[in-house]
Amino acid sequence: MKERKNYLLTVIKELLAVKDEKHLKQFLKDTHPADIAEVLSQIETKADQQFLLAQLDSQLAALVLNELDAELVAEFLQEISEDRVSEILDEMSFDDAADFLGELSENEKEKFLELFEDQDAEDVQELMEYEEDTAGGIMTTEYVAIPDNITASKAIEVLRETAPDAETVYYVYVINMKNQLVGVISLRELIIANPNALISDIMRKKVISVNVNEDQEDVARLVSKYDFLAVPVVDDSQHLIGIITVDDIIDVIHEEATEDLYRLAGTYAAEEDETLARFTTALKSRLPWLLVTLLGGLMSGQVLKNFSDQLNAVVALAFFIPLLIGMGGNVGTQSSTVTIRGIATGQINTSTVVKTILRESMVGISLGTVMGSLVALTAFIWQGSMKIGLVVGLTMLANMFTAATMGSAVPIILKRIGVDPATASAPFITTTIDIVGLIIYATLATILLGIF
Amino acid sequence: MKERKNYLLTVIKELLAVKDEKHLKQFLKDTHPADIAEVLSQIETKADQQFLLAQLDSQLAALVLNELDAELVAEFLQEISEDRVSEILDEMSFDDAADFLGELSENEKEKFLELFEDQDAEDVQELMEYEEDTAGGIMTTEYVAIPDNITASKAIEVLRETAPDAETVYYVYVINMKNQLVGVISLRELIIANPNALISDIMRKKVISVNVNEDQEDVARLVSKYDFLAVPVVDDSQHLIGIITVDDIIDVIHEEATEDLYRLAGTYAAEEDETLARFTTALKSRLPWLLVTLLGGLMSGQVLKNFSDQLNAVVALAFFIPLLIGMGGNVGTQSSTVTIRGIATGQINTSTVVKTILRESMVGISLGTVMGSLVALTAFIWQGSMKIGLVVGLTMLANMFTAATMGSAVPIILKRIGVDPATASAPFITTTIDIVGLIIYATLATILLGIF
Repeated sequence: MKERKNYLLTVIKELLAVKDEKHLKQFLKDTHPADIAEVLSQIETKADQQFLLAQLDSQLAALVLNELDAELVAEFLQEISEDRVSEILDEMSFDDAADFLGELSENEKEKFLELFEDQDAEDVQELMEYEEDTAGGIMTTEYVAIPDNITASKAIEVLRETAPDAETVYYVYVINMKNQLVGVISLRELIIANPNALISDIMRKKVISVNVNEDQEDVARLVSKYDFLAVPVVDDSQHLIGIITVDDIIDVIHEEATEDLYRLAGTYAAEEDETLARFTTALKSRLPWLLVTLLGGLMSGQVLKNFSDQLNAVVALAFFIPLLIGMGGNVGTQSSTVTIRGIATGQINTSTVVKTILRESMVGISLGTVMGSLVALTAFIWQGSMKIGLVVGLTMLANMFTAATMGSAVPIILKRIGVDPATASAPFITTTIDIVGLIIYATLATILLGIF
Repeated sequence: MKERKNYLLTVIKELLAVKDEKHLKQFLKDTHPADIAEVLSQIETKADQQFLLAQLDSQLAALVLNELDAELVAEFLQEISEDRVSEILDEMSFDDAADFLGELSENEKEKFLELFEDQDAEDVQELMEYEEDTAGGIMTTEYVAIPDNITASKAIEVLRETAPDAETVYYVYVINMKNQLVGVISLRELIIANPNALISDIMRKKVISVNVNEDQEDVARLVSKYDFLAVPVVDDSQHLIGIITVDDIIDVIHEEATEDLYRLAGTYAAEEDETLARFTTALKSRLPWLLVTLLGGLMSGQVLKNFSDQLNAVVALAFFIPLLIGMGGNVGTQSSTVTIRGIATGQINTSTVVKTILRESMVGISLGTVMGSLVALTAFIWQGSMKIGLVVGLTMLANMFTAATMGSAVPIILKRIGVDPATASAPFITTTIDIVGLIIYATLATILLGIF
């Protein structure tokens, strides 16, 4: 794989160096748009990038630009003639165009919209109005639909005439006179059917569709479950208004996985690329949870402050603070991660909720017993005091039980009350576990060491 | 969505209760296999489950069983006649059968293999020999290939005769006399081509394929990048031996995302289902990292022990320990998560490594300056001591800089030396940051408070 990439880059750079338009054109024609986009972003000078772009016909240019960041695309398009921009935009699929325009400023958006043909501009604008993370936001309006009252041979004829893009014809959707989705038939079923058969007689009548306002994550789950290549999108009155293809679903799955990871680490992911590229975005996205942690840390400090008589008397108690909160935090994160992922994949549902929390609590008690014994022994050896060993060991047990229980219960409760568990859980749980753990520690120490 | 599921379960349960075979059969025929599988796993008694299964024809039964856990399937199949098992197994696609058998004990595997037709048993056995997480492990051998020296009309004829499963014909692969992959053509291109055109003249000659030993994660990245519906698999001599379809790629992406999440939390994911279901697996998978954390916690304790003179003198220093290590850990996790994800998605590569680490360091310094000032102020207000404020604030700054730098550098270094950064990073980084942070704290306190 790697060699292939380097090979492409080398060849294209060499052709660029000698400005060999003929061979460059030929070579690019046989190269996948995704590869051209990658090479384009690795070429150093703007002049070379523009020269490369100029060698692509408008259809290929549209495909290549579609792989790049919206702002980079806007930059590229600013430099070339309006006629050429208009040609390229016409070749873009409406959903790609809407995604691209959606990320530009109002001014730029207006300017580019004017370069579309009137009807297309309207379609693209309509697509931009859907929420980004709903079915409407990821669907395309370029699907193939046939009426239910024609014959198979007529349908094939319609397809030949109207389906411009070979790759999108996985399923052919069937609509009635009111434009409502009533059936589906695969291209192959259509081909092997009796030419005179009516579509309404040979189509599959049970079509699984999604509502235009459905969350993109739910759509992804549906497509994963049924192994669909595409799913039709309908409005509230069952009118067919678009389709979502599996390649967009893969993007959603990647996006959501990154989001989940980032949220667990307490740094929300705006756009994946953005977060990586921009310093200020990185700062802004991480600050909120750091402030939560700060507040939690100060509360922990307050707990210890109230505990200062005991700490003054037995300073050894301080030695175990990092250990106790480290272990509690770790167990809490493990439990919450497994739980959040279980909720996301659908393995944790109403019927397994109680089982999940119970299992996590048991895991916490078991791990706490093992770890508590180890720590108690260490504390005894270090300090020569059974009492300190007992305090530290019991705190470890109580702490890990609390951490595991909270780690699984909090995401479930959040989900129940309608808050996204991935967003809110991680730093909140860790911080709370810290504070609760220290309160347990202070209480046990006060009781068992008999200090007062 | 939810209502639909409940509706299915209710109807099927009612039909089961009255043993209405006729309507049950009819109803199931119109239900998606994935839905039937879900209902099956929610039915309480074994007898009802078997009764339900008995109503499915063998093709549908194969599709339904394919959605369930291998062990559950083995249980089901144990109860029914060998003839029927043989019929169902014959309907399974080879890769599904291989996946299913691969999870059984040697004994059970042998027993089931005998129920396949001879040739099929061989094919399935061959598939089982590939590593589970390679292209070979996820490919299917049921693809459609045509020779390059026939005409388009002959090719369509061949397809009509040999392609039994409508859904797998996204692309038609073209092979030469030696069975080597030489081209690809879409079904639609074939249909609109001149019937007398030679396949070798109308096929696309640049086919992107994967080697049978390629890692499944790399295959997923390739399919995501090029928006493929399927990718052909070849051996070292370019012989076409299978294809991987996009639905299996989606499974891989889910699997890898879960793995990454779990690893970050220090609990390796065996099988997703297993970890959720089994108590002992949960224990075993989490213990290793807890032991690492334990060791780290004890080392932190040792640092504080060496620091006990200062702690004895100024017990207030202990109050800030949870805060300092909490913030350091948080920043470290944020940096390492962004870095690990960047490595996984390919955004961090040789050309952006230095930039990434520098950016993270800068983020650490900036966040550290803000947080350090806040904490210094708080410490001053709490303790009325400028010195303590200065120690705590400076430690925070140094700590967050170290955490952010380590958080990004460690995964990159691990990747360089060939260790999976997702597996090894998280608890290791957090633990190291704790210890380093406390050493910084102790050192700064010793110097600035002028104790000794």
